[in-house]
Amino acid sequence: MAPQQPGKLRVFSLNCWGIRFLSKLCAQRYEMIGELLGREQHDIALLQEVWSERDFLFLKRKLSCSHPYTHYFKSGVIGSGLAVFSKHRIQDALLYQYSLNGYPYMLSHGDWFGGKAVGLVIVEVFGLKAHVYVTHLHAEYSRAQDGYLPHRIVQSWELQQFVRHTSHGADLVILGGDLNMHPQDLGNRLLRSHTGLRDCYTETDKFDGCEDGHTLIANNHFTKKQDLIPFEKGIRIDYILMKDSQRVSVKCESLSTTKGSVSDKPFPYSDHEALMADLNLLSSQDCTGALPESDQMDVVSEARAVVKEGLSKTEALRDRSLHLMFAGLLLLLLVLCSSCFFSFSAVGFLGAVCVFILLSGALLYMLFTTHIKVLKETEDQMLLRSQNLQTKLIGCRVSGSSSSDASPEIHPSSVFKREE
Amino acid sequence: MAPQQPGKLRVFSLNCWGIRFLSKLCAQRYEMIGELLGREQHDIALLQEVWSERDFLFLKRKLSCSHPYTHYFKSGVIGSGLAVFSKHRIQDALLYQYSLNGYPYMLSHGDWFGGKAVGLVIVEVFGLKAHVYVTHLHAEYSRAQDGYLPHRIVQSWELQQFVRHTSHGADLVILGGDLNMHPQDLGNRLLRSHTGLRDCYTETDKFDGCEDGHTLIANNHFTKKQDLIPFEKGIRIDYILMKDSQRVSVKCESLSTTKGSVSDKPFPYSDHEALMADLNLLSSQDCTGALPESDQMDVVSEARAVVKEGLSKTEALRDRSLHLMFAGLLLLLLVLCSSCFFSFSAVGFLGAVCVFILLSGALLYMLFTTHIKVLKETEDQMLLRSQNLQTKLIGCRVSGSSSSDASPEIHPSSVFKREE
Repeated sequence: MAPQQPGKLRVFSLNCWGIRFLSKLCAQRYEMIGELLGREQHDIALLQEVWSERDFLFLKRKLSCSHPYTHYFKSGVIGSGLAVFSKHRIQDALLYQYSLNGYPYMLSHGDWFGGKAVGLVIVEVFGLKAHVYVTHLHAEYSRAQDGYLPHRIVQSWELQQFVRHTSHGADLVILGGDLNMHPQDLGNRLLRSHTGLRDCYTETDKFDGCEDGHTLIANNHFTKKQDLIPFEKGIRIDYILMKDSQRVSVKCESLSTTKGSVSDKPFPYSDHEALMADLNLLSSQDCTGALPESDQMDVVSEARAVVKEGLSKTEALRDRSLHLMFAGLLLLLLVLCSSCFFSFSAVGFLGAVCVFILLSGALLYMLFTTHIKVLKETEDQMLLRSQNLQTKLIGCRVSGSSSSDASPEIHPSSVFKREE
Repeated sequence: MAPQQPGKLRVFSLNCWGIRFLSKLCAQRYEMIGELLGREQHDIALLQEVWSERDFLFLKRKLSCSHPYTHYFKSGVIGSGLAVFSKHRIQDALLYQYSLNGYPYMLSHGDWFGGKAVGLVIVEVFGLKAHVYVTHLHAEYSRAQDGYLPHRIVQSWELQQFVRHTSHGADLVILGGDLNMHPQDLGNRLLRSHTGLRDCYTETDKFDGCEDGHTLIANNHFTKKQDLIPFEKGIRIDYILMKDSQRVSVKCESLSTTKGSVSDKPFPYSDHEALMADLNLLSSQDCTGALPESDQMDVVSEARAVVKEGLSKTEALRDRSLHLMFAGLLLLLLVLCSSCFFSFSAVGFLGAVCVFILLSGALLYMLFTTHIKVLKETEDQMLLRSQNLQTKLIGCRVSGSSSSDASPEIHPSSVFKREE
């Protein structure tokens, strides 16, 4: 089934910055994006931040001839913002919504409402089964004081878990999207080292685009310059990643990005730059797998430390929400006990305020308890992975520690013997 | 790698009914469950409703010799309640929390707080890679008026999607748990027909247990008889399912259930009966796959109809929550406009009530909007699957309709041609 002659696959990825009524010149930019996709005829276009279904439907109509196969992933309150346009038939689709994605009360950031996720579409290309993933991770609002780091690490972990466990039957794997992480950031290393996904930017011999592959640049009409400090020239946070299989070898022949402006247009497609990769598919028996176990273990250890720190911070937040609940309850009791000193309306008003405090505390308590569950589950999975890597590393099938939750006392000789 | 001689795998599944302070005789029953598991030495025990981590840790200590490998899946506010105890090393674990799982305001039902999910552990057994799934679906509180049916159908869909997409590399697949569905219920058929999982109860020649394989029976000390009406003798809602691979054939040699009482004990292990399956693993080149495409299509069509109905009902609920918001807003404006006629405290009290109504409406609006997103996503995935099955069925690679979202106008001849 692998192509006899080299097959070429052209992949496009763009964060469209499509917040209706907030993002600038939205309708005009979608018109431009539609024109670009219709003209360039990429095999697969992976879009992020298509927040409005109406905008997706506009593109769908515009690209009905060039890209007849589409999937718009729906999740969260607003949506995942993820969309796929394909020239090749989409056989199946699957969505995994990240368990941790910011806080609902951070209205100015708003990531929580977006239901950030990773979407998978299975596409048949030249008789090959391509597993194509599109994703968008939680934004980094402050690099110096990044309160969302544990959330992004959990998302990176879940992303690599999802890719690893759903790509077994694939002939080739492609992942595109806005990872909101610099190339050497922990989450990025976690993803690449555990899945074996390779970065088109570092793999290609032919790159035409912004300096250092930046996808968020100062020279973009829509970029707020203060958001880039201390990276004045720009940052690289959007990616196209690829992976071989035992049957197919994938090479990135060329990669290009837009460069902040569009010829004959007064403004760019988005506040992010678009990525375009030309991939060569060749028959192969070789497969570039994940990094060596020792490297994978180092990255997991580092990630576990971040998750643990996130856990203790979230536990502190849960305790504070518990205090808020108790404060509300105590104040309510105080108001009720001293009701004879106030008018009926005053008691009602003060009582309502106390109930409001009590309920807010309860909702926050539930939110942080859920977060703690997710962080603990992630830590357990990471520990399990570490133990498995360690077992592989020492070339011994039985390791000293065994449980995924802690370290029970086991007797190695019992492991592969069944007691009747 | 497949076993030269027949290998035998003993699997256990039980809904432990472990709601601390609410479930009767919890501590004593966990003591009994621990004794049973320690004595019977099943290879893998799949437990549900282990809601308290303390109870899990109690079992973990008690079974540290017989089942040194464990994983406790954490999600939701309370937890998923899912736990795995294994004699064989757990290599990896992955959790998928269902997108739809009841309503937070249904405090008496409480499923929402449980974070219902499907957990996967990858276990090495006799050199084989076993993918073992444990799950618990939303309860059915009324068979006649089952308001949660669309939620359970979405969960069944997500369950089969998760199993299908994560079991490619498996030598054998086992799924155990409380599906909260009768054997011929739509969600159950959806799961079996699309994954190729076979029911141990219908497959085995040797069954020893309750009549018709019931796992919720009238003759159980803890069962509320009125919950079983109109199924006076009992119902079968707990399952052990299995699946072959191209390398391994799995046969259920025998299946047994507990029968409502335990010898020498005054009460049973739980309000559910436990399942115990003895599976024979044999080298094989044959693989029993999923049902024929036509059968799969029929089930998907039926499921889509339920999801669509759920969608329209949820849209109505969202509209009502919008009305609630507007009512709160209007009342607030009314209070503020007529503030000169009331005392400051009275205005404050009435204002607080209005804000409470407004916020409740807003929270419900967000909840139902999220549910609508999930229902739409599920419907899209179902449509896509139908189209793919149809394509396979007619033996033609290009079907008349193509998009996963709707039906764009496409030209079949363009599908496998790339435009340069």
